[in-house]
Amino acid sequence: MGVTVWNEGRHERTKPEMAKIYPDGIHGAIAGGLRSALPDLEIHTGTLDEPAQGLPEELLEQTDVLLWWGHTAHDKADDALVDRIAARVLGGMGLVVLHSGHYSKIFRKLMGTTCSLSWRNDGERELVWTINPAHPIAAGVDQPIVIAEQEMYGEPFDIPDPDEIVFISSFAGGEVFRSGVTFRRGRGRVFYFSPGDEAYPVYRNPQIQRVLANAVRWAMPGSAVVPPAEAVRANRERY
Amino acid sequence: MGVTVWNEGRHERTKPEMAKIYPDGIHGAIAGGLRSALPDLEIHTGTLDEPAQGLPEELLEQTDVLLWWGHTAHDKADDALVDRIAARVLGGMGLVVLHSGHYSKIFRKLMGTTCSLSWRNDGERELVWTINPAHPIAAGVDQPIVIAEQEMYGEPFDIPDPDEIVFISSFAGGEVFRSGVTFRRGRGRVFYFSPGDEAYPVYRNPQIQRVLANAVRWAMPGSAVVPPAEAVRANRERY
Amino acid sequence: MGVTVWNEGRHERTKPEMAKIYPDGIHGAIAGGLRSALPDLEIHTGTLDEPAQGLPEELLEQTDVLLWWGHTAHDKADDALVDRIAARVLGGMGLVVLHSGHYSKIFRKLMGTTCSLSWRNDGERELVWTINPAHPIAAGVDQPIVIAEQEMYGEPFDIPDPDEIVFISSFAGGEVFRSGVTFRRGRGRVFYFSPGDEAYPVYRNPQIQRVLANAVRWAMPGSAVVPPAEAVRANRERY
Amino acid sequence: MGVTVWNEGRHERTKPEMAKIYPDGIHGAIAGGLRSALPDLEIHTGTLDEPAQGLPEELLEQTDVLLWWGHTAHDKADDALVDRIAARVLGGMGLVVLHSGHYSKIFRKLMGTTCSLSWRNDGERELVWTINPAHPIAAGVDQPIVIAEQEMYGEPFDIPDPDEIVFISSFAGGEVFRSGVTFRRGRGRVFYFSPGDEAYPVYRNPQIQRVLANAVRWAMPGSAVVPPAEAVRANRERY
Repeated sequence: MGVTVWNEGRHERTKPEMAKIYPDGIHGAIAGGLRSALPDLEIHTGTLDEPAQGLPEELLEQTDVLLWWGHTAHDKADDALVDRIAARVLGGMGLVVLHSGHYSKIFRKLMGTTCSLSWRNDGERELVWTINPAHPIAAGVDQPIVIAEQEMYGEPFDIPDPDEIVFISSFAGGEVFRSGVTFRRGRGRVFYFSPGDEAYPVYRNPQIQRVLANAVRWAMPGSAVVPPAEAVRANRERY
Repeated sequence: MGVTVWNEGRHERTKPEMAKIYPDGIHGAIAGGLRSALPDLEIHTGTLDEPAQGLPEELLEQTDVLLWWGHTAHDKADDALVDRIAARVLGGMGLVVLHSGHYSKIFRKLMGTTCSLSWRNDGERELVWTINPAHPIAAGVDQPIVIAEQEMYGEPFDIPDPDEIVFISSFAGGEVFRSGVTFRRGRGRVFYFSPGDEAYPVYRNPQIQRVLANAVRWAMPGSAVVPPAEAVRANRERY
Repeated sequence: MGVTVWNEGRHERTKPEMAKIYPDGIHGAIAGGLRSALPDLEIHTGTLDEPAQGLPEELLEQTDVLLWWGHTAHDKADDALVDRIAARVLGGMGLVVLHSGHYSKIFRKLMGTTCSLSWRNDGERELVWTINPAHPIAAGVDQPIVIAEQEMYGEPFDIPDPDEIVFISSFAGGEVFRSGVTFRRGRGRVFYFSPGDEAYPVYRNPQIQRVLANAVRWAMPGSAVVPPAEAVRANRERY
Repeated sequence: MGVTVWNEGRHERTKPEMAKIYPDGIHGAIAGGLRSALPDLEIHTGTLDEPAQGLPEELLEQTDVLLWWGHTAHDKADDALVDRIAARVLGGMGLVVLHSGHYSKIFRKLMGTTCSLSWRNDGERELVWTINPAHPIAAGVDQPIVIAEQEMYGEPFDIPDPDEIVFISSFAGGEVFRSGVTFRRGRGRVFYFSPGDEAYPVYRNPQIQRVLANAVRWAMPGSAVVPPAEAVRANRERY
């Protein structure tokens, strides 16, 4: 089973202070956490400025769960690539969308809404509360997870009603946010998880790493990924 | 269309300091707010220590939306009365359950879960965020509603997944709570709204009064309340 | 309040037999039914081959609920127009998508899935069962609605889990279909209703006309339609 | 991991013709199917007329998933036993409710509604359509499952909106039914599956056996079953 961590990777090249937080990039930190937690899975990475935008067709075809982090270059993602990713999600591939990825083309395309939210970046404390304690994505995490410094993402979050809400966060400034939500789209499972600004070492937090590992397990398709459903004339006999 | 505000009414008799906050009882404050906002509706009240526990059959039969506040005497509610209320909800009557009513017999019976939550009563500030801005229950309220002093109710809140979440609250202590949630049960609409401890003048807050008036309108049945569904042998011809 | 019935209108020009069923076009039949049932509303129509594809900006701006019927020319709908419609739905406009409109650009854009289904057109009997008897869209309709001849639309229907299912149909051939489903997207209410093939006089059926009138009332925004949500920096003080 | 198949077991003693269909009782047929499909699990059975109504505390304590079939003696189930089962479900035990179990005390208690439905027993063909093809409970089953003879169960089915609908059935008489639906209650997963009247050999159908084996896997708790949630004073420091 293959997992690919995709990261825009632009901040890493323009913000020298990020090298201290994420010497291997955000994708490197996330992939490292997954490799420790999920040794039976093959963990790949891809970034926007690599050939084929880091997701050549042969890699996508081997990807059972895709994680997506983007921020400043959402509009640079190739539309044909986004269409291929969406088709693969509808056919069963899991998708984990991270933090500012709420505004990515792939997430907006699958949601059908603006995916807008309210925000303020003052490095405030975020508390991530589990509201569905038996959900596999919340297995083994603190109640709440405490993130010392984070960007605030607040409601209203313009998404369709999620199938499940796993986490709701509060911020020191008083805001709340549905920070961990699931959606089924076609045969694929989608999880959005908001903690993770590039300015803070959130993805090195063992609690956050556990959530991501749980999410990858949860999003894994139960059978082979197939082309998305297409209308077919019912050629069976009438019952 | 008839609306009945039911209140346990015990705190009012044992806590003299409540007389300053609610000289007419919690039910009186709520009913007063509804009468101002909804002059076309007839607003009744009932309390536990009145005859027939404040809800004689003829009153219940005229009630299209019932509001329910209880706290220390949930176990005193007569089981037969609770069964009649539940049957009427399933037949179309609206039900608005308030604050500590989360532990009432009627709410637990309709939910099927423990309805437990976490709590701490330190008179902290609660912020009530609208997460579904187009929902009629949130029409015209501040974003967020600020309640200077309130008891904290926190997640996990052990309820079935609501049909809709209208409000999520944060507290000064950092906790979060799904503070305004809807459920359909049978033909009836149920709204649970958590703000409203007896120690603070929450129900005199115009914003809270607006939420309750909106909720009454929303919960109003679209047609006459009927006995709850019963299985019937399909006596029509086969199609 | 303004309502616009949009129809592709191509079948009417190429299939002479349709003139008998729908002498004023599908849009004319639907608009006529709505005018009788909803005399307080202004009912407009638009078709693909009119200027501005039948939906000039000034008409769209006055439209509170849009009904959409299309079939053979989904790809002809102008992308910019579809984007404007989607933005207006997210801002609060109601949308009622009819029959083969399941494959329209606007519906697929708002759903994020293929919206595919199984089908067979043998003019079979469809039974439309109400599964949520208190839903306002089902008010006053037969249980079930009997449509003597219809195209079969069958599961699996590749849509996100609806917020509510109002109707489920069966067909003489044994298939089932979620034939009336609701979705909230942004501030807007979306209803998909599957009965209505161009080859049968479904929209002249008084029961179907009642469903459409109910759906228009249900989808009507509670307040003025606004531009869709956009992320804004939280400029208020921290709480 | 322990699984217990509970069966009222009264029809078996009063209807001699059932001995041909289910020589080991309905519970025996179901348990046999599960033993073949799930050899790693320990499959127990219990019936109403055994000591402790077939579910002594030590057996219930070892049960991770409970299947429940009842029909004519729902009222004989001991209330204290039903309370213990409900508590265990809320604490994480899976529950699979079968056919006429829709009217059992345990299902009604967890749903909070009448659970009524429409029915007619003419031995008609039922088609069980998968509407969520990627759901693990539907893995590997025919589309549709064809049951030659079955009792008809029809909508409206008075249950809360399910978390997920896996199957919808049609009947030769034209009716439809949400025949496979899931609910989370507390930490526990609940699946209701309607095929299975005592007069037809439905539980010997390999397709139905596969659904039940899938459902047991799906309902299995991810961690130890715990007592249901209880309100606790938040004794941590404020954040």
